[in-house]
Amino acid sequence: MKVGFIGLGAMGSAMASNLVAAGHQVTVWNRSQAASEKLASLGAKVASTPDRAVQGEVVHSMLSNDQAVRELFLDGGLLGAMDPGTVHVNHATISIALARQLAEEHAKHGLSYVAAPVFGRPDVAAAGKLNILVAGQASAIEKARPLLELMAGKIWPMGELPERANVVKLAGNFMIVTAIESMAEASTLAKAYGVSTHDFLELMTSTLFASPVYQVYGKSIAEQRFQPPGFALPLGLKDVMLAQDAGHAAKVPMPLAGVLRDSLLEALADGAESMDLSALARVSERRANLDKRKKDG
Amino acid sequence: MKVGFIGLGAMGSAMASNLVAAGHQVTVWNRSQAASEKLASLGAKVASTPDRAVQGEVVHSMLSNDQAVRELFLDGGLLGAMDPGTVHVNHATISIALARQLAEEHAKHGLSYVAAPVFGRPDVAAAGKLNILVAGQASAIEKARPLLELMAGKIWPMGELPERANVVKLAGNFMIVTAIESMAEASTLAKAYGVSTHDFLELMTSTLFASPVYQVYGKSIAEQRFQPPGFALPLGLKDVMLAQDAGHAAKVPMPLAGVLRDSLLEALADGAESMDLSALARVSERRANLDKRKKDG
Amino acid sequence: MKVGFIGLGAMGSAMASNLVAAGHQVTVWNRSQAASEKLASLGAKVASTPDRAVQGEVVHSMLSNDQAVRELFLDGGLLGAMDPGTVHVNHATISIALARQLAEEHAKHGLSYVAAPVFGRPDVAAAGKLNILVAGQASAIEKARPLLELMAGKIWPMGELPERANVVKLAGNFMIVTAIESMAEASTLAKAYGVSTHDFLELMTSTLFASPVYQVYGKSIAEQRFQPPGFALPLGLKDVMLAQDAGHAAKVPMPLAGVLRDSLLEALADGAESMDLSALARVSERRANLDKRKKDG
Amino acid sequence: MKVGFIGLGAMGSAMASNLVAAGHQVTVWNRSQAASEKLASLGAKVASTPDRAVQGEVVHSMLSNDQAVRELFLDGGLLGAMDPGTVHVNHATISIALARQLAEEHAKHGLSYVAAPVFGRPDVAAAGKLNILVAGQASAIEKARPLLELMAGKIWPMGELPERANVVKLAGNFMIVTAIESMAEASTLAKAYGVSTHDFLELMTSTLFASPVYQVYGKSIAEQRFQPPGFALPLGLKDVMLAQDAGHAAKVPMPLAGVLRDSLLEALADGAESMDLSALARVSERRANLDKRKKDG
Repeated sequence: MKVGFIGLGAMGSAMASNLVAAGHQVTVWNRSQAASEKLASLGAKVASTPDRAVQGEVVHSMLSNDQAVRELFLDGGLLGAMDPGTVHVNHATISIALARQLAEEHAKHGLSYVAAPVFGRPDVAAAGKLNILVAGQASAIEKARPLLELMAGKIWPMGELPERANVVKLAGNFMIVTAIESMAEASTLAKAYGVSTHDFLELMTSTLFASPVYQVYGKSIAEQRFQPPGFALPLGLKDVMLAQDAGHAAKVPMPLAGVLRDSLLEALADGAESMDLSALARVSERRANLDKRKKDG
Repeated sequence: MKVGFIGLGAMGSAMASNLVAAGHQVTVWNRSQAASEKLASLGAKVASTPDRAVQGEVVHSMLSNDQAVRELFLDGGLLGAMDPGTVHVNHATISIALARQLAEEHAKHGLSYVAAPVFGRPDVAAAGKLNILVAGQASAIEKARPLLELMAGKIWPMGELPERANVVKLAGNFMIVTAIESMAEASTLAKAYGVSTHDFLELMTSTLFASPVYQVYGKSIAEQRFQPPGFALPLGLKDVMLAQDAGHAAKVPMPLAGVLRDSLLEALADGAESMDLSALARVSERRANLDKRKKDG
Repeated sequence: MKVGFIGLGAMGSAMASNLVAAGHQVTVWNRSQAASEKLASLGAKVASTPDRAVQGEVVHSMLSNDQAVRELFLDGGLLGAMDPGTVHVNHATISIALARQLAEEHAKHGLSYVAAPVFGRPDVAAAGKLNILVAGQASAIEKARPLLELMAGKIWPMGELPERANVVKLAGNFMIVTAIESMAEASTLAKAYGVSTHDFLELMTSTLFASPVYQVYGKSIAEQRFQPPGFALPLGLKDVMLAQDAGHAAKVPMPLAGVLRDSLLEALADGAESMDLSALARVSERRANLDKRKKDG
Repeated sequence: MKVGFIGLGAMGSAMASNLVAAGHQVTVWNRSQAASEKLASLGAKVASTPDRAVQGEVVHSMLSNDQAVRELFLDGGLLGAMDPGTVHVNHATISIALARQLAEEHAKHGLSYVAAPVFGRPDVAAAGKLNILVAGQASAIEKARPLLELMAGKIWPMGELPERANVVKLAGNFMIVTAIESMAEASTLAKAYGVSTHDFLELMTSTLFASPVYQVYGKSIAEQRFQPPGFALPLGLKDVMLAQDAGHAAKVPMPLAGVLRDSLLEALADGAESMDLSALARVSERRANLDKRKKDG
């Protein structure tokens, strides 16, 4: 199939590679050139401007936030550059407000819009094992399905309203950050009584909480290894705030989200800008002043 | 071995049964008679008074809270009724303050004290697959080990200070309640946008959060089946408050615990006294007023 | 002096009236006509379009939120319609982000910009007794001072950076909402033990908390009189969220603000859209289920 | 009148002095001798043991917490040392649970019990201007009234159930701590934008929040003067926890109290053991890392 792919960060590159490897004619575009060259070496065609990358039957995009999506597709006029009937599959984690606006604008341009946010890190994307949430018109999803199946371990249908896939992604990321804050507070408590964080989290993450999220972030916390970030802390804050925005628009109080927001802000105020989400553990320890007390005691 | 066992609730019965089945001479005592009779039918000896159940080399107790432990062992004089050298293995989830007092009092009476709280529900106990945290003097633990191995899938050593096993149990239960509140808030958000709680939690608990805690409580939330309780909501509140007490004594702030406490209290104020912890989901939905809004809309 | 005045809600009308009464030549504009007519009857000139109301030496504006300010002054081109050297005194409660953008845009157009948010309700404005926070270039403030003094009980200088006046306004409104939530929780606790809200709040607001904010909102809570709103609950939520945004931009965690946001959202979910901020008391009572329990008991 | 007075801390001394000065025959007792001597110099009789200080028609006590009250009156047998018919006026800030137990135990001994907690610092007590909350049997209150009037600016009747005066005291102290945390967060926000804490709090505490609580603690915050403590931070934490306990017993969620508890704990972890409640401001600044950022910037 003739396919376009916009946005070649760590996730987008891995996803696009799987399409190329399966023999599709993929035209890619990325803001910076380096990522495109890697895809070119695998057999992709590199577009010099974004509008040339949206000529396929299906166009995927994997951009980093609302602003990037808005700049290219709404302000930048990419919707007008696509042929009517094109299916745009948007993998980005975006706000509900933008999800609604995109659905409307695509309809105005006679385009099909599928929201398809994903769960999984770059290594999972490379292995074609992502969990992909899809929402949009059934016919559009069917057209994109062969491509999605190249990227996905499993495809999770969420209905026709695109925003539903987005709210599930935000709710899921909220659960991830909560899990990390929970490990941070619990292991600080245990540590204050002399139990090593490593012992505590090994127990928890190999028994009651033996699941990927707890194991991946629990390992970072136990080893105090917060760089390089797997899931950058500022992005985690962005997603918690998008979940809060979604809660605000629907009048859904989320008291845990309020706690997460403040802990993440406190982490940033303490210099965690380039650290992983698991650096929330530093905030818990700082609040309890464990290091300082150890020295004094 | 000659063994005593005090406390035959759902957990205690299952644990004691495994000792009897392995051929140990087990003398049991329970406040109400019915539970003892079941153990008798399996081959246990039933003591008419608690002091007659503490004559073995090792005495296990599995009582429901601080008050029950305090009444029998401290105020009730059971410590004085044990032979010096006896090993007391206390499986109860108790406060750090009581854990410390028990350690001191056992030492004064020349008794060995092992804290051995467990993770696992009654069916896991019956299968002899509990995760048992142990802390106490190495020699005492070694003496009890053959018995513990009959109950445990795995034994997790936490050092010589008994309170360390207790703080780990409290920290773990805090993480369990946090996980439930997290599912409650996230699924209410998703539901407000039209995503069914069943679909949302099936996705989450079979992917990122594919672990026992999320799956067990997620199922209750998805099916809105809050009775009979697997883990009674008032006991969950008790444990969150014990974790807060432990945090207070060690000057460890735990903002998530504050949220949990209020959500659990709100559940109780709304009549969840005899419900499962998963009834936290009712609180989230009530806050967002989803049912009422649906009717109005 | 020749003065313009944009925005004639309850506050703006009262403020503009004082300028007219003092003999200034005031040209007013308001989106809806009715408010303008009242000012006309006092001696103001009514502009048919907003650009005709910004021809004075000093232009005041008192609009309800970011959107209204943005639409008129930035998107609507009013900045271009003012003569270079004009002083624009913006009384609105707006975001820090917009405050910064306005300061930049005014400078580009050769205009002087003064942020002058106010504390006080319409009756205080009518009496010319507002507390007005001012920030901007000293010369611009001096030019506007004779006008500000007609509206103010006291003028509080906050320096040259306009955003400083805005952040003080947001911080102050955050303190107001906190005070109300504090009375709501405290009086619900007292009520659960049989102390009437009236007795409790009369004590508090005539002793330790004998200040305007506590007395005004305490009276509403004690009398359960939440309509018509003095300070509409949705506006209170807007301001708490602007304070959170300001906190986010400056990396300042505000845990109380998180609690306020959720309580206000819960009030909205329960139908308080057209109620006063003091309707936060309904949320506290609902959480504790006092009414229901009384009926059952 | 023949009067007993137990407990001569800063508050108790000032209160007892007023009774002595009015010509009553006051017998005092205090754990440490020094305070008694000062009262003796004013004309009080000093009892060598507490039981000799409870022989009057009315016995006042002003002890620092539950433990001190419990040790003397319940465990120490003072109730048995009083003549039947004696009125015991308990001014201490105690838990609801102890208030209930004291009411029962006094009744069993044929004694009249009046709960009479106070609002006001030592200087207010010395001036005889305290706000005194009273709850108990009307006849007992009448008997004590002439004495209470010597201490009080105003007496606030709260009904016959003693615990009602106690819950009002706890609810009031909760409001005090909330007010301080509110000033702490708001002034940190303002400071992050360059507004001095002094300027911000002068504005707030002379306008909307022109009341004793805000002015007293606002001054400490503005001057960063946290020692010696007027209201010691650990006592503030104790009272917030008593309010939470009262909320727990009556199933009243108090989300603000959860935030206060954690902020106070964080202050203690950072060394504020001997500081004033206003040291909450240090916690807010530390979270936002303002000092550190200033140095780096």
